Order: sequence, then C-alpha cells, then structure tokens
Amino acid sequence: MKPYVFNLLPEDDLAEKLGRIRRYMAETGLDTLFIADNGNKYYLTGRIFSGYIIVTASEVFSFVKRPTCFSEDEVILIRKVEEIADHINVRALGRIGFELSQSPYNDIVRYSKALLTSDFGNADAVMMASRAIKTTYEISKIRTSSDALSAVYRKIPSMYQEGMSDIELQVEIERQSRLHGNLGIFRIIGQEMELNMGSVLVGDNADNPSPYDFAMGGSGIDPSLPVGADGTIIRPGSTVMVDTNGNFTGYMTDMTRTFACGEVSDTAYAAHRLSIEICEAIAKAGVPGTKAADLYNLAADMTVSAGLADRFMGHNSQAGFVGHGVGIAINEWPVLAPRSRDVIALGNVIAIEPKFVIDGVGAVGVENTYVVTANGMEKLTRAPEDMLRLDEEI
Amino acid sequence: MKPYVFNLLPEDDLAEKLGRIRRYMAETGLDTLFIADNGNKYYLTGRIFSGYIIVTASEVFSFVKRPTCFSEDEVILIRKVEEIADHINVRALGRIGFELSQSPYNDIVRYSKALLTSDFGNADAVMMASRAIKTTYEISKIRTSSDALSAVYRKIPSMYQEGMSDIELQVEIERQSRLHGNLGIFRIIGQEMELNMGSVLVGDNADNPSPYDFAMGGSGIDPSLPVGADGTIIRPGSTVMVDTNGNFTGYMTDMTRTFACGEVSDTAYAAHRLSIEICEAIAKAGVPGTKAADLYNLAADMTVSAGLADRFMGHNSQAGFVGHGVGIAINEWPVLAPRSRDVIALGNVIAIEPKFVIDGVGAVGVENTYVVTANGMEKLTRAPEDMLRLDEEI
Repeated sequence: MKPYVFNLLPEDDLAEKLGRIRRYMAETGLDTLFIADNGNKYYLTGRIFSGYIIVTASEVFSFVKRPTCFSEDEVILIRKVEEIADHINVRALGRIGFELSQSPYNDIVRYSKALLTSDFGNADAVMMASRAIKTTYEISKIRTSSDALSAVYRKIPSMYQEGMSDIELQVEIERQSRLHGNLGIFRIIGQEMELNMGSVLVGDNADNPSPYDFAMGGSGIDPSLPVGADGTIIRPGSTVMVDTNGNFTGYMTDMTRTFACGEVSDTAYAAHRLSIEICEAIAKAGVPGTKAADLYNLAADMTVSAGLADRFMGHNSQAGFVGHGVGIAINEWPVLAPRSRDVIALGNVIAIEPKFVIDGVGAVGVENTYVVTANGMEKLTRAPEDMLRLDEEI
Repeated sequence: MKPYVFNLLPEDDLAEKLGRIRRYMAETGLDTLFIADNGNKYYLTGRIFSGYIIVTASEVFSFVKRPTCFSEDEVILIRKVEEIADHINVRALGRIGFELSQSPYNDIVRYSKALLTSDFGNADAVMMASRAIKTTYEISKIRTSSDALSAVYRKIPSMYQEGMSDIELQVEIERQSRLHGNLGIFRIIGQEMELNMGSVLVGDNADNPSPYDFAMGGSGIDPSLPVGADGTIIRPGSTVMVDTNGNFTGYMTDMTRTFACGEVSDTAYAAHRLSIEICEAIAKAGVPGTKAADLYNLAADMTVSAGLADRFMGHNSQAGFVGHGVGIAINEWPVLAPRSRDVIALGNVIAIEPKFVIDGVGAVGVENTYVVTANGMEKLTRAPEDMLRLDEEI
C-alpha cells in the first residue's frame, strides 16, 4: 500500500493554530503540550488516529499507534506511550501540559512516567482557548455543515405524517440528515452528557427534566438515555422543537427550529417571536470585545420585559446559559452565561438558543450558529425561523 | 410534580450486584467505591443521572445533582461533590476506590479532596468484574435487544436496492433499527474508540485500516470518523458485512451478518462457513472455568487448519481478539484474546466474531452474542447465519 498523507490540514491553518497555542502555552507557563484527546488530535491533524501529539515551542511530533499506514517521514510509529522516550529527548520537554480535565487519572499517571515528569500543568485551557477562535478553514467546514443541516430542516414539513410520534419524525429527520452526509457522531467534551442524534420535543415532554445541561430536557424513551423524544404522538395544539445533530464535516453546527401542529396559542407565537428577536439582538451586540455575560443578560432582560422569564430555558428545570461555542464538539468556548468570564472574539463560532416552554403547548424558539465578525455575528444556519405549520412546505 | 422513583432495578438484581461488588471490594482491599461513570451508575440504579453513588460494605448513598425530581427518601440532593461531606461522615469511608481508569485526572483530584482522602485505589476492576457476570434481569434485557436486532437484520434484503452505496444501505438499517426501538447511543468504555451506529462494509473497504481496535476497519466517509462505510457502491461479486448498533434496552447485543451481492467466490463462502463453525466450536467449548485464551486459540487453530490464518480478523491490519464481553458497553469483560487471563464464568455475555477478509470480495463471517450457561454458551442473536444473497428474503 502507498503510505497515506498524515496531516490533512492546510499549511496556513495549522500554522495559525500553532501560533495561538504557543502564545497561550507561554502565557500559562507550559513548554510542551501532550495531546491524547481525539478532538484535540483532530484539531491539529484533520484526522482521528490512535496515538499522541507533542507540541513544543519549535516542533510538533506525531506519535502514531494505529493505523500504521503513514509515512515515517511524517509520523513516528510506536506501540505504546513508553516508546516516546526512545525517539525524543523527553528531559528537554520542560514543563508539560497534559489534558487533565479530560484524560483519565491512570492515563495521566502513565504519561507522566513515560515522559519522566512529575511537575505538570493543564493543557485543556490552552486547547479550549485556541479552539474557540476558528480559522478560515474551520469556518468553511462549519458553513458546509450549516448549509447541509438547513437543507434537511427545510424538508421537515414534508417528512411529517398525521399521527406520527416524536420518535418517528426524528427517525425521518435522522435518515434525511444521514443521506445528506451527516456523520452521526455527536462529540461532547466531558464524559457526563450523552446524546444520540439530537432531539425532537413535542408538547409537555419538553419540560421533563433531564440530567444533562441542555437547554431543553425531555424524558427519552429509556432511562438509560433520559433525554429527548419520549414517544409522544404529535397532536394539534402542540409545538415540535427540532434540535438535531449538525456534524457533516467533523465540525458541528447547531440549529433549532420549531414547528406548530395545527393551531397553537398566541403566547407560544409571541415567545417564539421573542426568541428570534433575542437572537437578532445578541447577533448585533456580539462584536469582538463584548462580555459573554453581558450578552446573556441582554437576553434575560428581554425575557423579563416580555413577562416570560419563568419560561426561559425551561420551567421545571431552567438551564443557566443562552449560548455556547460550537466546533469539533458541541460545547466549546465561549459560554454565554450570567457568570461567564469569556469575552467575544473575532472567529468565535457561537450557537445562540433562547428557548421557552409554554404549558400545554411545548417548547418554542430557535437556535442559530453564528460566526463573530468585526461587525457582529453572521448567521450560518439559514433555514426559515418562523414557526411554520408542519403541513406547510418551507 | 410527584417525585419519581429513583432506583429502577428489581430488588434481587441490585442485591446480587452489590453482593458481588462487596466481595471484590474486600478482595482488593477497598472499603468504599465512589462511582461517577454513567455506565456504572446505570448498572447500580437502572437510570442515568448527574451525580455519584457511594457503596460501602453496608450502605449505598445516591447523591444527585440533576434532575432534582427524586424523593429525598431515596437520594441526597447536592449541587457539587464537595457537599457530600455535609451529609455523611467521609472520614469513616476507609480506603476508597475511584474510577481511575475512566474519570479525568482533575475529577479524581477533586473527588479525593472532597472526601478527604489521599490514599485511594481503583474501582474499575471491581466494577468491570461484577459487570462481567450478568444477572437474570440484565440477560433478559440483552435477550430483548438481541431479538429486536435479529428482527431488523431479517429485513435487510428487503432494504437493498440495486446501485445502492454502503452508506445508503446503512441508513436504511439505522432507520429500521430506530423504528424498532434502537436507542442509538453506542457505549464504549474508554475515550479513544468512537462509533456512530455501527458499520456496513462492502468489498475491499473492509480491509482499510482504522485507528480503532475493532475486528474490521473501513475508511469511513470522513477522516474525523475513519471507520466503516466509505460510499462504496454495492456491486455484484462483493460481500456486504453488517455489524450495527444493538442497543434497544440500555444493554447492547452485538451481531454481524454477511450478505452476498451476486455471485461471490468459493473462498468467500468457505471462510464464511468457517466463521460459523468457529462460533459453534467456541460456544460448545465455552463452559464455565474455560480459559478465554484457550477459546481464542481454538479459533486461531481452526483458521490455520483451513489455510485462512492470514485473512483472520483482517489482513492489512489484524485485530488481536475473537470475542469480547457485551453489556451496558460494547467492550466489557471477558476478552477472548491470546494473552487474556480471563476465565469464562456463568452469566458472562460474550460476542464472538471470527471474521475474514477476502481480497477482491470483502469481509465475511458472522458475530453472535452468547450467554454462558452451565452447559456452554446459548446463542441470543438468532437471525440466519448463512451468507444469503441480498435479493433473497430471510
């Protein structure tokens, strides 16, 4: 077999990322990063592989366990982490940052022994901070994912059939999404939150509490995955909120649209309209330098003025944020929350999801993914935002 | 709202698990287990929640962060792990086992501070050993998943249409599976291996190396998830190996079936037949007390006799096992591998997957999930095993 090219990133993309990473390394007193997490390895190579990346101030070493098809000009093939010391002078690595918030305890113990260090720091903040600023190449991938998910969402009314359950509609959306190239995998940083292909919430199920820190809950169909659709039949008078997987390129987009089945209350329409207005207000205000907490407060104030604060981001269980970074994973930086210390920066990609729960009707609101430009946020998720009837074509 | 019942397990099921866990705790010198992992929490409660379980020699404490809908007779509601010390005497917990192979380094540091301990051990081996022996209740869940996946697999020939790609067939299988109640989530212990809903491998793509320790590889359609279907059109002369998600109940089953498109070579049929024979031989030999390594060697010897050893479990990249435990996760104990020290025990649930790659044709073989009884292994995955033509109904 001809060796495969290992690093799939455009040269300037990798250079931009490394420049930022090395600046943050210097700021946090780290001489070296040791990268084992799939998301971070993908960020630095454009591919998932079994192995490790070592980043120093001047060099990048790729140690690969599997697959073994790459040229040894590009990678160093190893069988286990202990072999790294056979190939490079690990004593010269200085203070190493490991992914302490992500890698298992025993892995860190093993890595630090293999690299002969006991005084180490945390690589996660460096990587999260760098990943928060998307490169042109990354933005193009998120744009592609956004366009694909928008195309799928436009077809949703045509997927609906009278008498369907939430699960049945979700399965049709999943199918269309997969046929449009959706990869299926839903990457979430951290081990606690789990999700399959996203969720479709109908009627009062939207307010059933879930263990996860998602904007909306839902019971799910089994206590082993207590989130999302629970088998509710879609009946006139309820809303159908669709918030499903947007990973078509390795980079995710995040979009929610709400549909009405039959006639729903004026309150539901008003809250839905408010959600769109909040998105627009945040997008306009969110220029580089803005405090993420201020954007959350802008949203919260608008819900107070409208008398909908107690319906904002759930009712029985309210989520404490209105937006979050999106990229390789669904929960990147910055976070738009009351106590967030994040500051909006050029190149951030942020999902904004002001959602409301209306008793007896269900969830309403939209979610859009934006890229931060010098003039504010540009919306990437372009499916129609109005609460359309499920029986109308969009 | 009326409080929800927290622990969903039958009483005798939980009692059996706790009995085994406490025996292993005593054997490994642990007085207490501190459980944070979703799979382990599900094992002990029948539900996923945000929080922790503490198991001592005489008590079980459930600390719940979210959702907050449970009765305080059953759970202790907390906001953060540090509050545990307000509710129980953490100094009396003795030597604590944390999930050192699974929980992130920083989480372990935080937990050990919160519980005022610095001398701790590893809970993972205890939990893995207990989870390897399935209770009657767990086996009934795996049986349900097996029957559901068998029903889906029987429909595969009816999903096939001429000119389809591997992805298109996979999407139809996923859709049918989801409509039969598949939960979608694919739990794998450890952070490295990732998979969406399993894989469909057509022709030579089966031998493309993947970074994961799976029996077969496949390129995938994107380097961010380099496994499985790669867009190959299903053409006469190739095989179609289907190995997709069997999680219908929180407990997984694992089943592979291979279909032929048109005429395939006699070698392919012979290797497929050998796979079925290896399954049958292992199932017969696998009585309690058998060494797992002996079962691997039994399989390997049969491939040598048949002259197919270099095609066994891949060719360009061969996997080093022929079977693995299945339960809440796809990679439980025991492992049937040459250097495994596991011993087959009553109540093990094991997937056996002797697979072969035939040049120019593709992957062949079956995978079945078995429960170990006193007389050997009982097969739970009952879809027909012969390599049927995709255009025949099964």
